[in-house]
Amino acid sequence: MSSDLQATVALLTRTPAVLDTLLRDLPDTWTRRNEGDGTWTAFDIVGHLSHAERADWMPRVRMVLQFGETQTFVPFDRAGAERESPQASLAQRLDEFARLRSDNLGELRGLNLKPEDLERRGRHPALGVVTLSQLLATWAGHDLTHLHQLSRVMAHQYREAVGPWSAYLGVLKCAGHSS
Amino acid sequence: MSSDLQATVALLTRTPAVLDTLLRDLPDTWTRRNEGDGTWTAFDIVGHLSHAERADWMPRVRMVLQFGETQTFVPFDRAGAERESPQASLAQRLDEFARLRSDNLGELRGLNLKPEDLERRGRHPALGVVTLSQLLATWAGHDLTHLHQLSRVMAHQYREAVGPWSAYLGVLKCAGHSS
Repeated sequence: MSSDLQATVALLTRTPAVLDTLLRDLPDTWTRRNEGDGTWTAFDIVGHLSHAERADWMPRVRMVLQFGETQTFVPFDRAGAERESPQASLAQRLDEFARLRSDNLGELRGLNLKPEDLERRGRHPALGVVTLSQLLATWAGHDLTHLHQLSRVMAHQYREAVGPWSAYLGVLKCAGHSS
Repeated sequence: MSSDLQATVALLTRTPAVLDTLLRDLPDTWTRRNEGDGTWTAFDIVGHLSHAERADWMPRVRMVLQFGETQTFVPFDRAGAERESPQASLAQRLDEFARLRSDNLGELRGLNLKPEDLERRGRHPALGVVTLSQLLATWAGHDLTHLHQLSRVMAHQYREAVGPWSAYLGVLKCAGHSS
């Protein structure tokens, strides 16, 4: 495995446990509140990550390897998390995400990708030609985008409570670009 | 303990394990690179959090309880992390942060703060009069600011690797307000 792919897999492997450590049994103040109408809670973010495990990453890896640029990826529904077991508890969503991620990384390892495989190309419905290397890096970058969003959504719940210190907390200045 | 204080302590308790789960043994690609001159790596962020455990939070809690508004907090040196065991490994910094946080939360619990204590006032060198409640909320908000920064610093390392997907990754649009 190339060092880049090792770094990607190292991060992807850790994310479910990071979210579990942060969110399991945390008071609802932190996990069930959003940033306003139409925005996401921590609970929503975990559902979205599971939806992406099912619908986005490995299905697209398979398409690149099987069809190259000749077939376009199925567009990813960013609101798909709303259909992702809405009745589940946060603990159940965390378990589900961990299971899906573990299964997907098992499949990825089983592909035994070589450096030349990472240059193989697929076709994104909006972005055009992309490489397998870019797809895998984006899988990790997507985890980080939602960790970034999650810390912002949680900090939002303390916007008033911190009083004048809000001027010093950079996370409260974040404009929501990572929703 | 009030429900607000319980929520604060619940988050503060988890942060060291969250950082440990994310960062321990992660490749240097993620942990030893910054966002450019004068910016911080993951390694620096963990050092800064330990420095704040020593110099900021509990010392200020003690000042509020002992002196109220009559003594001004010692200004916090945000660059103090540079003097925080520069030769230590990341694993040692993670251990140190966990130990300091655990000790501080033990001391906080031992104070057995009542709701009326949370309204007690102290004096910040720049912000003026603040309450103990605001100080404790800011301790948690500071954790989230640095989790937000950390996810951004890490994502920065994949800015090129994700190719055209950079347009979709909100964390890459973050302007660095949380450094």
